[in-house]
Amino acid sequence: MTTTRQSTRDRFLEVWPKIKEVLLDQAKQEKLPSEAFDWFERNLDYNTPGGKLNRGTAVVDTFRILKGEELTSDEFFSSAALGWCVELLQAYFLVADDMMDQSVTRRGQPCYYRLPEVGNIAINDSFMLEGTIYIILKKFFRQHPSYVNLLELFHDVTFQTELGQLIDLLAAPEDHVDLNKFSLEKHQLIVLYKTAFYSFYLPVALAMRLYGMTSPNDPGQSESNECKNGTKTDCYRQAMDILLPLGVYFQVQDDYLDCYGDPTVIGKVGTDIVDNKCSWNINTALKYCTPEQRQVLDDHYGKKNPESEKKVKEIFSAENIDLSKRYQEYESESYQKLNGLISEIDDSIQGGLKQDVFKNFLAKIYQRSK
Amino acid sequence: MTTTRQSTRDRFLEVWPKIKEVLLDQAKQEKLPSEAFDWFERNLDYNTPGGKLNRGTAVVDTFRILKGEELTSDEFFSSAALGWCVELLQAYFLVADDMMDQSVTRRGQPCYYRLPEVGNIAINDSFMLEGTIYIILKKFFRQHPSYVNLLELFHDVTFQTELGQLIDLLAAPEDHVDLNKFSLEKHQLIVLYKTAFYSFYLPVALAMRLYGMTSPNDPGQSESNECKNGTKTDCYRQAMDILLPLGVYFQVQDDYLDCYGDPTVIGKVGTDIVDNKCSWNINTALKYCTPEQRQVLDDHYGKKNPESEKKVKEIFSAENIDLSKRYQEYESESYQKLNGLISEIDDSIQGGLKQDVFKNFLAKIYQRSK
Repeated sequence: MTTTRQSTRDRFLEVWPKIKEVLLDQAKQEKLPSEAFDWFERNLDYNTPGGKLNRGTAVVDTFRILKGEELTSDEFFSSAALGWCVELLQAYFLVADDMMDQSVTRRGQPCYYRLPEVGNIAINDSFMLEGTIYIILKKFFRQHPSYVNLLELFHDVTFQTELGQLIDLLAAPEDHVDLNKFSLEKHQLIVLYKTAFYSFYLPVALAMRLYGMTSPNDPGQSESNECKNGTKTDCYRQAMDILLPLGVYFQVQDDYLDCYGDPTVIGKVGTDIVDNKCSWNINTALKYCTPEQRQVLDDHYGKKNPESEKKVKEIFSAENIDLSKRYQEYESESYQKLNGLISEIDDSIQGGLKQDVFKNFLAKIYQRSK
Repeated sequence: MTTTRQSTRDRFLEVWPKIKEVLLDQAKQEKLPSEAFDWFERNLDYNTPGGKLNRGTAVVDTFRILKGEELTSDEFFSSAALGWCVELLQAYFLVADDMMDQSVTRRGQPCYYRLPEVGNIAINDSFMLEGTIYIILKKFFRQHPSYVNLLELFHDVTFQTELGQLIDLLAAPEDHVDLNKFSLEKHQLIVLYKTAFYSFYLPVALAMRLYGMTSPNDPGQSESNECKNGTKTDCYRQAMDILLPLGVYFQVQDDYLDCYGDPTVIGKVGTDIVDNKCSWNINTALKYCTPEQRQVLDDHYGKKNPESEKKVKEIFSAENIDLSKRYQEYESESYQKLNGLISEIDDSIQGGLKQDVFKNFLAKIYQRSK
């Protein structure tokens, strides 16, 4: 498992120079001055390939599972190109999020906007990162029967992620703490929109489109239209119904590990408490705290000093709140529910969804410590 | 002419509430909290309908000319919906440009990002403005034979405008004056990419697509494919070859009027000189100035004081430079060239391009004083 995984990531990374070449060729065709050309290349390299690449490689992995055998080199390339589009979408979001959050570092280097000569130009650079997605789609998928669906998937998911970012920004402004704006329901909504659609649903739906699976809701299709798997089930709906809760579960883990993970394992020291983040931890604490504990949270959450952070952590661990215990309950419950949903997929349908697509995701994240 | 024009603009504005309703319905479907819903509505209203709406109404006007008779109310709505997509694209650019330029006012009100509660959230709000374009296109044009072409037009033109913005930002950074980075060639490139594609080509190309005109370069078309007009000419290429120089001419006028227009007529006091803008004026002056005059420009261009601005204006009016005279020459030459290109269009072809599309634009901008 680890070796296959490793090798998918390595092969995926080998596709990046080809993607970049297409984008730079486009810039050359448009007669960009060399100064702007070099700037564009740095924008691409600085912001795109430096992450874990889980979202991008998920397109390739999913496509392989749907096909049921090893991919040809053309198929690997096509699915990897779509994977790079997801990574470019992520780069677009992250460049902008870091500006809005006034973050300092990202992926072990200064946030892009903090490079001295970049500053606010990063806004336009983030726009360009988004724009490159449609250059890649046009270049490699213009003749694909699912071209329109691929375009719409990116449009829909991009807007949903922006909605999530808006809800998050209004709930937890960088400079003003108001815990009345928080709730577990709002947290769920933020996580769903800001993370789950683009990180979990998008890669799988792209692979399904590439494989040619249709939906009864496709344009020009009547209601009686069948999916490729020969049933009238909307396989995209079924995939979404698993992947969105999976994405929420993933983000709850992320929130939990920010406070309770081992910094030497997760590779960073958590800052959600001092940064006034609308995380699962604070929202769960708010739900179960006494009025006295609430007062401590009001006084100390989002304050930029270690004493305040320590006081908040003490509340998180208080007996009546005990986030560690609640997290373990949440994790085990989520795991069971997700397995239940996955087991409903009929693996025997030719050309249909496969349980392994989702088992693969779940195995990677269940009980992770980083 | 003026009454028709006025009435198109008024009818166009009446479509805005319907466009907004679609977008707010979408937000409602996504179960947006009321706080975020109200924020989104203000974003739309504050940034979209307050401008001159020339780009948006140009889609309607062009469609009417192509059709050769008055539009049905459905046709008016469709072309106006596309027009509002152009205005939303413009809103997206302007919100971001104002942040990058650190501008103060726009359309007689504070720039959006300067509203106290907005600030950097404007970055995500600009993303959302762009995202709404694809919601409108999906809602009203998903079944239209040109749907993919409409999507691609927006993708292509958006990226070209972002390229133009990048070239401009690198040539004229807000805080560092270096006239060596300027040239008339670079100015032409900036204007072409940053303005002409989205302001002139896009509205006309959208109307042509709505009318059903095809191009030999369309996906799935062989080289022998004919346009709707029955010839093998690419009518999109022909339109572009007129509209791009027309857009450049328009922007040169804009640059000229910033310095030489009557503030009571154009409705603002020009600030291009103190803002270090890469305008036609400075680039023309750089081309013709003596070394001594160049020194004055180096010392005073982009400086935030009225004395420096006055010194620069003196150079602009010096006998060997005389921007007013050069501008009149440029205008008359452009007008002749454009008329020549327009006259090459064969008006007699059924379903083809019409000279009036372009004459209409040219009449509106030739010798304008605002």
